[in-house]
Amino acid sequence: MRVLGVDPGLTRCGLGVVDGLPGRRARMVAVDVIRTPAGSELGSRLLGISDAVEGWMDQVRPDVVAVERVFSQNNLSTVMGTAQAAGVTVLAAARRNIPVVMHTPSEVKAAVTGSGRADKAQVTAMVQRILQLSEAPRPADAADALALAICHLWRDGTAAVMPASAAGSGGGATAAQQAWVAAIEASKKGSRAR
Amino acid sequence: MRVLGVDPGLTRCGLGVVDGLPGRRARMVAVDVIRTPAGSELGSRLLGISDAVEGWMDQVRPDVVAVERVFSQNNLSTVMGTAQAAGVTVLAAARRNIPVVMHTPSEVKAAVTGSGRADKAQVTAMVQRILQLSEAPRPADAADALALAICHLWRDGTAAVMPASAAGSGGGATAAQQAWVAAIEASKKGSRAR
Repeated sequence: MRVLGVDPGLTRCGLGVVDGLPGRRARMVAVDVIRTPAGSELGSRLLGISDAVEGWMDQVRPDVVAVERVFSQNNLSTVMGTAQAAGVTVLAAARRNIPVVMHTPSEVKAAVTGSGRADKAQVTAMVQRILQLSEAPRPADAADALALAICHLWRDGTAAVMPASAAGSGGGATAAQQAWVAAIEASKKGSRAR
Repeated sequence: MRVLGVDPGLTRCGLGVVDGLPGRRARMVAVDVIRTPAGSELGSRLLGISDAVEGWMDQVRPDVVAVERVFSQNNLSTVMGTAQAAGVTVLAAARRNIPVVMHTPSEVKAAVTGSGRADKAQVTAMVQRILQLSEAPRPADAADALALAICHLWRDGTAAVMPASAAGSGGGATAAQQAWVAAIEASKKGSRAR
């Protein structure tokens, strides 16, 4: 299963593609951040995002698009633009009959770090470990897009799932699950050391 | 000049087309309300709105699209969907190189009724009078879309403009301006009579 994660935004829109298979490690396919100039008209900014997102959808052919659910309680000055960037992304997927799932920021954080209140550095560190990347994905929007894709793969149960200990059932963890548990533990140690 | 006014919304999206020429009465070309079912997925709702808006743009070929500016301070439960409906409208216009203008609800109310705090009934009554419609446009979203188009024509100075008395300069009102003043006065009397 291939997931395109989208962290929507007018100024920076994170796009990350992750492949996952049952019992296999999640693998990064591509990651990028689309930027549109703050001084441009809304229409040209939305067009830039829509064209980029449509290009990615046509090229990487995701099975599902995971979009961050925007809340109106967020930063009021950016929330309308974020909602509109999310809207054109959802529209582009609907035009291609690609299913869209929405995940809240805390669901994504909990999926990759074990805590819904993890900070950006922790999310980035976990994404790097889970996908075995030689470098941390930058900026945070890129890491968030990959985290969204991982979150969906794990919640969907297609790829490595929550560790058996957390799920309350004994044993039977796959190699990927064990790697995930090890990564979570390493991340916690790293956080404590700081 | 032909203006397509759009009162964005997921459940009801008002569309109204008004033609205006300098010194001539504004004329309604078309009006409708697009509805998408509340139970449907966001993607299919945005697709329905986008397809309808694109169809209108291709058929009526507006010179400009006037969209209501959405504020995040509005009703929190609907504001995200409204922003997304506005987003796909702005995107559709940008794809066709049609300029988009945004007007706030109070700008629109002030343009057609003289008061930024006018209620829906007053806006509907004025839209009916300004466009000389035999029936009041219903529902309110249809009237709001027409009011947006009228607002843009008048603010733009292309069609009948603010009455000379309001603009602070004496005399020289066109027939359309005089008709507008008469309509405003009639509306005020009507309100008092109720």
